Amino acid sequence: MAPPISPLAPDSFPHLPPLAGVRLATFASGLRYKGRTDLLLAELAPGTSMAGVYTRSLASSAPVDWCRKAGAKGKAQALVVNSGNANAFTGRQGDEAVGATVKAAAGLIGCKETEVFVSSTGTIGVPLPYEKITAALPKAALNLKADAWLDAAKAIMTTDTYPKLASRRVRIGDATVTINGIAKGSGMIAPDMATMLAYVFTDAKLPAPILQSLLTRGADKSFNAITVDSDTSTSDTLILFATGQAQHPRITHTNDPKLKDFRAGLDAVLLELAHLVVRDGEGATKFVEITVSGAASAKAAKRIGLSVANSPLMKTAIAGEDANWGRVVMAVGKAGEKADRDRLTIRIGGFDVACNGAAVPGYDETPVANHMKGQNVKFEIDVGVGKGRFTVWTCDLTHGYIDINGSYRT
Amino acid sequence: MAPPISPLAPDSFPHLPPLAGVRLATFASGLRYKGRTDLLLAELAPGTSMAGVYTRSLASSAPVDWCRKAGAKGKAQALVVNSGNANAFTGRQGDEAVGATVKAAAGLIGCKETEVFVSSTGTIGVPLPYEKITAALPKAALNLKADAWLDAAKAIMTTDTYPKLASRRVRIGDATVTINGIAKGSGMIAPDMATMLAYVFTDAKLPAPILQSLLTRGADKSFNAITVDSDTSTSDTLILFATGQAQHPRITHTNDPKLKDFRAGLDAVLLELAHLVVRDGEGATKFVEITVSGAASAKAAKRIGLSVANSPLMKTAIAGEDANWGRVVMAVGKAGEKADRDRLTIRIGGFDVACNGAAVPGYDETPVANHMKGQNVKFEIDVGVGKGRFTVWTCDLTHGYIDINGSYRT
Repeated sequence: MAPPISPLAPDSFPHLPPLAGVRLATFASGLRYKGRTDLLLAELAPGTSMAGVYTRSLASSAPVDWCRKAGAKGKAQALVVNSGNANAFTGRQGDEAVGATVKAAAGLIGCKETEVFVSSTGTIGVPLPYEKITAALPKAALNLKADAWLDAAKAIMTTDTYPKLASRRVRIGDATVTINGIAKGSGMIAPDMATMLAYVFTDAKLPAPILQSLLTRGADKSFNAITVDSDTSTSDTLILFATGQAQHPRITHTNDPKLKDFRAGLDAVLLELAHLVVRDGEGATKFVEITVSGAASAKAAKRIGLSVANSPLMKTAIAGEDANWGRVVMAVGKAGEKADRDRLTIRIGGFDVACNGAAVPGYDETPVANHMKGQNVKFEIDVGVGKGRFTVWTCDLTHGYIDINGSYRT
Repeated sequence: MAPPISPLAPDSFPHLPPLAGVRLATFASGLRYKGRTDLLLAELAPGTSMAGVYTRSLASSAPVDWCRKAGAKGKAQALVVNSGNANAFTGRQGDEAVGATVKAAAGLIGCKETEVFVSSTGTIGVPLPYEKITAALPKAALNLKADAWLDAAKAIMTTDTYPKLASRRVRIGDATVTINGIAKGSGMIAPDMATMLAYVFTDAKLPAPILQSLLTRGADKSFNAITVDSDTSTSDTLILFATGQAQHPRITHTNDPKLKDFRAGLDAVLLELAHLVVRDGEGATKFVEITVSGAASAKAAKRIGLSVANSPLMKTAIAGEDANWGRVVMAVGKAGEKADRDRLTIRIGGFDVACNGAAVPGYDETPVANHMKGQNVKFEIDVGVGKGRFTVWTCDLTHGYIDINGSYRT
């Protein structure tokens, strides 16, 4: 039985425009699910450059290992993603499955094997019946089209309750450039990396090293600033593909001022996708933003923010609509980063709750309690030691999370 | 309404024998709870030495700060513990409350203020109405007696569903020595420190530095090897008091072979108390032991073990009686310690589940599924890179945890 759609889901999905150099196809290969698509094939124009950010798990899956290796060349012509089976912890069989899939896709598209990127998401530890994928690929290829973004986002879903898409139009010089992104993920979401799978496509013409720099920086503030349950997947993958079809001035370095708008657009797509993942957090009923300021550094602020965001006691209090700022203090304290207990200040929903290490005199809980009842909850925490600042996002921890994860495989 | 007693509670509580040099009294001071005791006063014979291990939270409570400072002298004559209010994040008022309590107890017992140790547990951020404590202390002192261990364990409870006690009789030379311990804690339990409050008393005659060495080592394998929810309290305190009333040969260094039996007894009391805390984990239905071997070091093994023990996906799978070893792989991978994915071996309940980086050929889930249905669940994980070994304990994550923590203050 599919779980109900997250109450934090957006009202509608953006319609992503076609993007020169990208064609998409989806297919129901029958890997695990019945009556839905589970395979995405993306065909990318020759000359497409790419960059990737992957899980930091030391038990990374065979597809992740492959993408890391193939990605060193920075060139792409195909992407193959399956849902239902993560092909993780599958030993040598995992590498064989990747090899067979890559070979099949390269033959079909007519490109080098190192230009084929693969991802798998779903159950860990079960050998991937890759013959179903290699058999499905030629059939899927018959349906490649420019206008299948929503289908693509749907095909890569696992426990997601809605597809995740984002798009921006930006300028590089006088040219208009499109950035389209899709993502999936709703559990096992934590830095680093956060969302299990996300793919961003652009028709910009940018060399791989510039893409890598833009993507790494953007991921740090988006996918690596979200957490649902502190658990890091073996399969987390974020890839940025640039087909180079747009006609814009040549860009030769990352700090070219002509990239300003592109960078902002890319960051916006990454952040929107990351937020969509949190909003689909398993069992989530609240979208929570936590900004930490006054820390020793941005890195320290991030670590404090994630300590708060990952605290089960914080997350259950938020689920219970309880403005329990004592638990904020606890979570700040356990983060292991410098904080001045006697200068600690906490605001919830814009209201001062605690100031200089104690409850605000005459603290009126009413407006704060009202804020906690909403779907969007905001914490601002100043730890009073420096200028470091960082924002992270998470969701609450509810009975729904337990329901979903106490019986995932059964 | 009090939650039902944990299904993992022991069938009965041990009767702790009187211990020369310790008298106990409890009292209902009305700090927060109605109709139950919330104050413990322990009177210790002159000459009692002590050692402490405290929370590593950087937002430690006023009582913890006091114990750290007073404990530098290593002498004790009184312990005052209240439940219902943690006196944490209470600013200058917190220090004042500690000061007034210490002064009152020192006057009552007739000792130095630095010989009085205080702890508070309960809600964070609410000023402690210490006048209730100072008013109650003289009344409590009228009832000091040697045989009130169960009452003492009950007075310090908060969300605990049962009192926690452990005792051992050991030999130092020809003399019999008693070690009695009480503890409280069931949520906000994670290294370091784990249980919020634990006090161990012995009639052994040991100088403070030796006590400290024994306690630090013992805590590392017990209280600092358990986790309920990864959250670290601002108030965690473990103190060992030695009244020196037993007649045994003089001990002058920690490695004296005559201490062997005492060390084993102390370790056993600490471990038993730590296990009792996990068994009372909020909402717990399973007691989980996780042994990691083959790690680069014992420290690495511990970090991997805690990564598994703290993973919400692991804990919900265990609640769902799901032998989901894929999540074990995930949690090992995210720990950030060296592990050889292709030599990783996982046993559940003594049965091989995964071996050398993949599922065991012909894996029969039946006996493993049966093991998962029991109250005691065991994981053995070998990460295949070295000789480091460590065992940690935790419980599952259930609807009960959400119920308890989504409405704690209301």
